[in-house]
This record gives sequence, structure tokens and C-alpha cells, in this order.
Amino acid sequence: MSLVDSLNWRYAAKRMSGEKISETDLESILEATRLSASSMGLQPYTIMVISNPEVRAKLQAAGYNQPQIVESSHLLLFTVWDGISEAHVDVYIRNIAQSRGVEVEDLKGFSDMINGKIKSLTPHEQQEWAARQVYIALGTALAAAAELRIDATPMEGFSPEKFDEILGLKEKGLKSVVMMAIGYRSSEDTLAGAIKVRRQKEALFSFVD
Amino acid sequence: MSLVDSLNWRYAAKRMSGEKISETDLESILEATRLSASSMGLQPYTIMVISNPEVRAKLQAAGYNQPQIVESSHLLLFTVWDGISEAHVDVYIRNIAQSRGVEVEDLKGFSDMINGKIKSLTPHEQQEWAARQVYIALGTALAAAAELRIDATPMEGFSPEKFDEILGLKEKGLKSVVMMAIGYRSSEDTLAGAIKVRRQKEALFSFVD
Repeated sequence: MSLVDSLNWRYAAKRMSGEKISETDLESILEATRLSASSMGLQPYTIMVISNPEVRAKLQAAGYNQPQIVESSHLLLFTVWDGISEAHVDVYIRNIAQSRGVEVEDLKGFSDMINGKIKSLTPHEQQEWAARQVYIALGTALAAAAELRIDATPMEGFSPEKFDEILGLKEKGLKSVVMMAIGYRSSEDTLAGAIKVRRQKEALFSFVD
Repeated sequence: MSLVDSLNWRYAAKRMSGEKISETDLESILEATRLSASSMGLQPYTIMVISNPEVRAKLQAAGYNQPQIVESSHLLLFTVWDGISEAHVDVYIRNIAQSRGVEVEDLKGFSDMINGKIKSLTPHEQQEWAARQVYIALGTALAAAAELRIDATPMEGFSPEKFDEILGLKEKGLKSVVMMAIGYRSSEDTLAGAIKVRRQKEALFSFVD
């Protein structure tokens, strides 16, 4: 099955069955997400993988009572770092050095470039930039779930402040951005059979030949 | 080949060979991108598909002279709508009505919801929200290219203002956000064989069981 087939299969399930996905499938989705591209490779985000029922009940109340929050198998909450520091960049640079067997000193040019880029941004711009990277990961995660015929619903409609409070994210230096519920569509979901609507190719793309 | 295999194969090529990708492969990548998820399904963006050599030479000068701008087969420039209007929403609603064979009047609740959401955002917030949707499409496009073993390099390093000017985007109500060069890696690209560096699973994910 090609990615195009998988994307044609998927939709944003509004109701899910509560059935759990397998550990193997969860691992595959997380691994694809982990391999996502990000600007300069920094991956300035942390992803909460939430299955706990009590926690999800609290999140549902802060998420317009959307049923997928409790009916999904797992909830992936994408959070960005609240402020990107030189310490974050150091961890990344050490990871490169270790992974590729090179010296940290040899990466100084790259390290300086990343720090320069980050310092050129205001705190708000840093968060927006990190949020954009999160959405690449979200796009990858959606594709990964669809390939396994697991339903995945991206969700922006919730109170990030309340989510942060419920999960103690402020203390961890994290801020909620977007979430994705994964699981299996419920037979009660009336949208399951709806025809997919997308912008026509002629409208979406503009060719400069 | 699974998506995880494809993502492990891919990297952001810094040099490309100039070889053209086939029309079939281009169509697949564009179709996957078109099928990307977006908030409320609106897809508030337009994607320029640029192959013209003269235009690309000009863009390269406004893009820190990065070689992929001219060495790629095609350049996909993701642009957001400069202001999301009720007219945009109307086009979308009519598309849903036509695709699903329902009456526009029956979609009034959904239409009002979208317009309400958009009007709750400042012009800057609208653009940021649209940009995030673009990055889902970028994530999808990267996965689609990797599946076909076509190289794809996401690029944020360019002057959006100059790109907009070169392409006459202001007149079209569009603003450049990010681009993706697609093509084939050059044998001169020293990064082609480098070990992929990603945050470790234990660092990237936080489990709430």
C-alpha cells in the first residue's frame, strides 16, 4: 500500500472504540515520529504519550469534552520547549558527536550557527518556530498511523494552559501545542464513510515551468 | 518498505544532481501533499511548484545561494494566504457541498464555526496558524518523497520577502513560508553517508501510563 492509499483511507475520527493498539504498532508510530525532519535537526519538542484514564478524564474536561480524548488508545500531546537554551543545543551537539564519532570541537561552527539562529528570535518567535517543527512531526505521525490502518485525529481544540497545568508541564519547561488521538474508529462515527474533501489540484498548486 | 525504513533512508541533501524526477513520481508526491490533514480541512495555503531555471537562479540569490535551489528537479514553495477571508471559507464550504452532495445551507453551522475561529485570530495569528498547517503538508511531502526514494530537502533559510517579490506573490495574496527541494542527491554530497542523528526515544517521549 502506498502512502497515497493510506492517506485516502484515513480521516479524523470523531468517535473511537476504546480498543488499544498493539505495543508493536505504538512503537512503529513513535519511531516514525522520532525520525521526523526538523530545522537544523534540533527537534525542539517533547511528546507526551498519555494512556492513563484518570489523567485523560481531566484532559477531556479541558478539551471541550471531545470524546477521542478518552476513547482513543493513546493520546500524543506535542509540546514545545518553553525557551530554547544553549544547554539544549549542547545536548544536541553532543548527540551528533557521539552518534557520528566526531569531536564536539569540530562541530563548533554548526553549534554557533544554531545558537545564532535561536538568539535572533524573540521568545514568542522561538515558540512559533518550534511549533512549526512539531507540525512536521505531526504530519509524519499521521502518515505512520495511516500506514498501519490505525486511526489518528489531530486536535487543536483544547486549552493549552489547562493541559500544561494538569500535566505539570510548566515545571518541565514545556508548553502544549497540538495533540493527536490514536486508536480505532467507532462504528458510531457518522463521518467514517464521508467522502474526503480536499482542494483540487488546480487550486492548490501553481506551476512555474 | 515501511515508512520507518523510508525515513531512515532519507536525509536533507545539501547537493543534488540536477536529474529530473519522473512526472509519475512528481504526481505522487503532489497527490500525497494534497491529501494532507489540516485544521478543519481548510488547507489555507498554496504550493508553488517551480522548475523554471531562470526563476530558480533568481531565487537562489535570495536563498543564501543554496545549491539545491537550482540543482533540484523541482522546488516546492509553500505559501500561506495573506489573510483568510470569508470568501476562502465559502469556496471550501462549496467544495464540501459538491463533493458530498449536500446543500450549502446544511453546512452553515460548520461554516460559522470556521469563520468564528478565523475572526478570533489576529492577522499575524492567522498566518502562524496557516503556517502550522503548511508544516503538516511538508511532513507529508517529505514522507511521500522518501517512499519513492526521491531526495527532499526542507529549507527555511531564504528571504520570504524577496521570494514573494520574484514570484509576484503579493499580488496573488500569498506569503512564502518554507520550501522543499526534490530531486536526487549528488555524489558530491559529503553528508549522504552520515549517520542519522535524532533525539533518543527516552528523551523525546514522556509516558503517562
